[in-house]
Amino acid sequence: MNRLTRIYPEGRVTLREVGLRDGLQLAKALPSTEAKRAWLAAEVAAGVRHFELGSFLPAAHFPQFADLDELIPACAAAGAHSAALTLNERGIESALATDVGELVCVVSATEAHSEANMRRSRAAAVALVARAAAEREARAPGKLVNAGIAMAFGCSLSGDVAQDDVLALAEACLAAGADIVGVADTVGYAGPAAVGALCARLSALCGPRPFIIHLHDTRGMGVANAAAALENGARVVDASLGGLGGCPFAPGATGNVVFEDIVFLAESLGHATGIDLEGLRAARAIAEAAMPGEGFHGALHRAGPPANAAWRA
Amino acid sequence: MNRLTRIYPEGRVTLREVGLRDGLQLAKALPSTEAKRAWLAAEVAAGVRHFELGSFLPAAHFPQFADLDELIPACAAAGAHSAALTLNERGIESALATDVGELVCVVSATEAHSEANMRRSRAAAVALVARAAAEREARAPGKLVNAGIAMAFGCSLSGDVAQDDVLALAEACLAAGADIVGVADTVGYAGPAAVGALCARLSALCGPRPFIIHLHDTRGMGVANAAAALENGARVVDASLGGLGGCPFAPGATGNVVFEDIVFLAESLGHATGIDLEGLRAARAIAEAAMPGEGFHGALHRAGPPANAAWRA
Repeated sequence: MNRLTRIYPEGRVTLREVGLRDGLQLAKALPSTEAKRAWLAAEVAAGVRHFELGSFLPAAHFPQFADLDELIPACAAAGAHSAALTLNERGIESALATDVGELVCVVSATEAHSEANMRRSRAAAVALVARAAAEREARAPGKLVNAGIAMAFGCSLSGDVAQDDVLALAEACLAAGADIVGVADTVGYAGPAAVGALCARLSALCGPRPFIIHLHDTRGMGVANAAAALENGARVVDASLGGLGGCPFAPGATGNVVFEDIVFLAESLGHATGIDLEGLRAARAIAEAAMPGEGFHGALHRAGPPANAAWRA
Repeated sequence: MNRLTRIYPEGRVTLREVGLRDGLQLAKALPSTEAKRAWLAAEVAAGVRHFELGSFLPAAHFPQFADLDELIPACAAAGAHSAALTLNERGIESALATDVGELVCVVSATEAHSEANMRRSRAAAVALVARAAAEREARAPGKLVNAGIAMAFGCSLSGDVAQDDVLALAEACLAAGADIVGVADTVGYAGPAAVGALCARLSALCGPRPFIIHLHDTRGMGVANAAAALENGARVVDASLGGLGGCPFAPGATGNVVFEDIVFLAESLGHATGIDLEGLRAARAIAEAAMPGEGFHGALHRAGPPANAAWRA
């Protein structure tokens, strides 16, 4: 638990910037490495300390993550925690050869999505978590292993997902050695009742150990779902600057929940995030300039914070 | 209470379409009367039964509401309940001469906004509610009187607003004879904690009597705030098709919370709205065609409902 709570303190709300990974997954205009560094530095200056930087995948097929090895030391030098996806054995090997702080494994809530997304059964995906945890333990015990459960609130291939199944997978991932688990509304099917209910059960499972909620705003429920998650024990929320990260099935759709709006939400609920909204404007200007034509969203950015004092609880 | 619960049944969630009033307040392209009728009819066909149709104001200065007298019988003929703003004595007189089902009076939570918006003190605004209620009682006892409290969560002129003041105003409006009160986050300052807290207190004040929550999505909290309101006793939610109704201070900003998204939210929370999302698409097509260049928003409309079954709780 010590390595975990050093990075994700119990009780405190942590916002993870996933725009450099999830936000670039489908981007048309890719930012240069230099722009990514500047964007990262600007967010660190605004108080953000947790970044998902990319995915350990072959650069030939995933040019958006080709500079991951350069971003990891840049993130560490800036004093922030870095994470990156490790979707197979090679990804784990690559991660262990870097200073990345967190290996992010993905497990699907449904067999169909697991096969379609990773060409692996759910059991094999959990075995990969076990492998990541064992290798890490042996070779880099300071790193975290994160297991994210995709399609946890419904699956575009299989339809409904039983919360019992998600809980069982989360328990299996923790038993396999994951330090932290997350649940993702990958296709934006959930409303706040479903999110609150699953988070309450996950909170009971994890005890004082923080867990992650990863939301997409596909149907406008993103902020409401984040509120329900925070009310039911989630203490780590993924989001991306400007809601970067469209969905291939919904042109113009926002991707992840908007980082700036989640800062506003968290602060309005009384959770000090340590993040400066004005500072995020500077980061956004860099990202927007580096990704012309990409959809940047978010109401707080457009309207600015309220003029009253009490909005920050 | 009988006339009230006939229109706003206790316990059941009612969504009020305010787009034909609040959505046109600042619109650039005004729909024709024919288009408004078609829009209204399409929403009635989709299951919407509550409409705010306009404001009783001089047509010379408010051309967007010049056809209010034609829309009221059209709404009644379609089998739906009509409401319209009565912001002064003349407005009350005009309303009583029509078949409108509900007179909507506005009271500001702060003295500064009351004077700026209505050239009337808060006490005078409450006195106007009393006059509307008394005239109604004498001349048209079937109509409802609604008192909406603007700037209930913070004021762009005065800053913070004490919930005690809002509660006192709500109590004064009910004592003055209003059937139903509402609280409005006119400038989108609130987060869900503030909305939940005020609604819980309003719920205690109103008892079984329904009350209204009126939200603007200025800072992206609209849906989260609606969720908090529904969880804390609000049973009537204002919204506008496509989030019509921009803010003069925030170009491109959505106005009211998006009707379609609120239907999704309410259904996902287990409240049957009786409203068909597919039917709303037809209504939206009419409104969009009638108001070229106007900003129509909403994620549910873009993405469509989820493909799983369990999203509707």
